[in-house]
Amino acid sequence: MIPASQPLQIGSLLFEDLDQIDLTGPFEVLSRLDHATTKFYGLSPAPVRDMKGLRLTPDAPLKEAPQLDVLHVPGGPGQEALMENQEVLSWVRTQAAGAKIVFSVCTGALICGAAGLLKGRRATTHWTARSLLPYFGATPVDARVVMDGPLVCAAGVTAGIDGALRVAAMLRGQAAAEAIQLYMQYAPEPPFDAGSPMSAPREIVAQAEGAAADLMARRTETAKKAAKRLGIAS
Amino acid sequence: MIPASQPLQIGSLLFEDLDQIDLTGPFEVLSRLDHATTKFYGLSPAPVRDMKGLRLTPDAPLKEAPQLDVLHVPGGPGQEALMENQEVLSWVRTQAAGAKIVFSVCTGALICGAAGLLKGRRATTHWTARSLLPYFGATPVDARVVMDGPLVCAAGVTAGIDGALRVAAMLRGQAAAEAIQLYMQYAPEPPFDAGSPMSAPREIVAQAEGAAADLMARRTETAKKAAKRLGIAS
Repeated sequence: MIPASQPLQIGSLLFEDLDQIDLTGPFEVLSRLDHATTKFYGLSPAPVRDMKGLRLTPDAPLKEAPQLDVLHVPGGPGQEALMENQEVLSWVRTQAAGAKIVFSVCTGALICGAAGLLKGRRATTHWTARSLLPYFGATPVDARVVMDGPLVCAAGVTAGIDGALRVAAMLRGQAAAEAIQLYMQYAPEPPFDAGSPMSAPREIVAQAEGAAADLMARRTETAKKAAKRLGIAS
Repeated sequence: MIPASQPLQIGSLLFEDLDQIDLTGPFEVLSRLDHATTKFYGLSPAPVRDMKGLRLTPDAPLKEAPQLDVLHVPGGPGQEALMENQEVLSWVRTQAAGAKIVFSVCTGALICGAAGLLKGRRATTHWTARSLLPYFGATPVDARVVMDGPLVCAAGVTAGIDGALRVAAMLRGQAAAEAIQLYMQYAPEPPFDAGSPMSAPREIVAQAEGAAADLMARRTETAKKAAKRLGIAS
């Protein structure tokens, strides 16, 4: 926990073809911390589109980011290109070295992995991609939020909200996180019990796995290449 | 439920000083429906900032919107100005008249109320603002999602995700909504039990009510003026 008077720099990596709520869910939480600056950093100053077309505009390009206290890395299919983008990986590594918390959401964990940040760590990601984590030297954990040292990994998509509340509590204490949770009226009541592959109807899980097969094949190839660069036997 | 082959026009009202997750939460769900177009309509084509500074860009101005099947009205402090903006209220009324579903999130219900859409309906909104609903002729209900005819009201902020999953099921059936829920890994695990004024620590609720007092006083005046225009005794 950090004294309430100490300002915080919170920055999210914004990129083309991300899944927007990996970004906007945590933003909703973290932007409400006192004395915190919460900004989006992009590969260029131009707006990007999320995987479903939502337009988001960076506050500044990567190279203009100050040293961040919290480095937030969202996911979505655009993560794959970034796993081979040395400018991005180098920025992530440099920021992570000075950050208090590295917070990945969904397949943002794969970007962190490609940057070498998951080596020897317990980690999680979207349920479809969890089997890739060993390529980065991580131990996959089937949990909604996994915390290991300065690394906080949220599972798929909406897990970013739960993860961000934990990050908020790490930074400013439980009462500050609870005040944000109350404001957000975050007392969820999912109308169906289909939010995990353990609870969803079997045919819906099979359909989702089928739909993700091509993407997973590409992600696996990219993860193998990253493993080779990182010197991890796979 | 609407045949899967029938295209859907889903449109959200985008305005300055909204609370972004009232918009982006439902977008995450509804943009994943098959044969659906999900767009943001703004008072002008210019980008706006949410109450915490997140920049969002309209896809088109209000007057260019087609007749929508789903009219989605988010909330946030900017809602107050819209409650007296006749161009917006008239657009909301006209769209609502032809829409299959009017879906309010958080204090978006107050905009719908000022447009006359809540008369004689059961409704809900952010917990701090629920007491204002009778000014619009509505019966306030303390529930996360309230459905009354074509009107779906979600309570505060993150309730929009639960509401959107219900809207998805109304439009395309439960299996379609469950597939989206699985993709979003929406099996929430809030780390604290502070998401409603019933469960949050008493001092945190008192603090939140104190912080909202000025806004509530202004909202109450605006609601009274709307009641007068709507011919509702208050």
